[in-house]
Amino acid sequence: MTQKEIARRGLMLVLSSPSGAGKTTLSQKLLSSDNGIVMSISVTTRPPRSREVDGRDYHFISEEQFERLVEQNALLEHAFVFGHRYGTPKELVDVELEKGRDVLFDIDWQGTQQLDESARDDLVKTFVLPPSWDELEMRLRARAQDSNDVVKSRMSKAVDEMSHWAEYDYVIVNRDIDHALSQIMSILLAERLKRKRQIGLSEFVKNLNPNL
Amino acid sequence: MTQKEIARRGLMLVLSSPSGAGKTTLSQKLLSSDNGIVMSISVTTRPPRSREVDGRDYHFISEEQFERLVEQNALLEHAFVFGHRYGTPKELVDVELEKGRDVLFDIDWQGTQQLDESARDDLVKTFVLPPSWDELEMRLRARAQDSNDVVKSRMSKAVDEMSHWAEYDYVIVNRDIDHALSQIMSILLAERLKRKRQIGLSEFVKNLNPNL
Repeated sequence: MTQKEIARRGLMLVLSSPSGAGKTTLSQKLLSSDNGIVMSISVTTRPPRSREVDGRDYHFISEEQFERLVEQNALLEHAFVFGHRYGTPKELVDVELEKGRDVLFDIDWQGTQQLDESARDDLVKTFVLPPSWDELEMRLRARAQDSNDVVKSRMSKAVDEMSHWAEYDYVIVNRDIDHALSQIMSILLAERLKRKRQIGLSEFVKNLNPNL
Repeated sequence: MTQKEIARRGLMLVLSSPSGAGKTTLSQKLLSSDNGIVMSISVTTRPPRSREVDGRDYHFISEEQFERLVEQNALLEHAFVFGHRYGTPKELVDVELEKGRDVLFDIDWQGTQQLDESARDDLVKTFVLPPSWDELEMRLRARAQDSNDVVKSRMSKAVDEMSHWAEYDYVIVNRDIDHALSQIMSILLAERLKRKRQIGLSEFVKNLNPNL
């Protein structure tokens, strides 16, 4: 029996940050460099955009289906954004956690607070800070190619998101994407070694010596 | 300001294991591969053995000095072993933690329990398990070159120590020394990224944007 085979319960890794801090790139790099973690797929009432695939980007469902999930208490968190509803289905996450696979969440502080209430023991909350405010503004401007007003509104949303950094377990500064990725990998690897997540440890120790 | 310069409080990394599980080798490798962590140096009333250096291996002190430290509540933990007293001086550890340096402890479950009471927030408790009982016995026999009775008594001490694995935050199986070292490094790196240990974060965030 190798250590890999000690049964473990998966964890829920939350990455939050103001937009422009590099969270999306970090998520993609993390998913492609580690086989043990998958992206959480939300349900939404929003219609699919071009190139979006049902079951890969989102599970696209009707208002009625969404309402039923809320009534059944089947969502770990949900939100209403620009006229559409979004949520995280509990069952899809549980299936992964029970298989010993980790689930990655790219959500804001409000979603994180809801997850904290519905799934605290499985949650690992990480906040990604930008290295400087100028750099954040530059990234948002480059991305937006929009009017000053749009950039201003995004910056104010960034301030709001960032004000919640102290609600997180871990905080990293994304100065260099590869260094930030290695920091997230360390957090993930360490959290997998937490005793409470290694649910097969009692059995492993009993097999070592029946007196234990 | 680089992330390294965000002030942090050091942590106390405890490694416990039955003897023969490779803890001493792991400690030495960890100390030589990371500049941010130093070994805790105990005080003891035992006389120095040949090659032991005062202030490097132990701080050798008198019974009276030891007694005074106990009375002043200046020890984080202490124990009486084979007629001699051993203890961890609080002040020496605090100086390192305040400089943002981590301190490594190679202690048993009893010492760990005392540290838990005196310094819980700074403590990261890691237990190292052997891959198999046969291997543990083999290592103890090889080391002892002693009578069966001595080996038996060591094995029974190993069972006692190992029975406390569930009191630790992290558990690793030392199947391969380099893999085990990388796991301990991940734990150390992740724990350094805990928000609560990065005491300079508020200032860093305020410098990012005065509205925060």
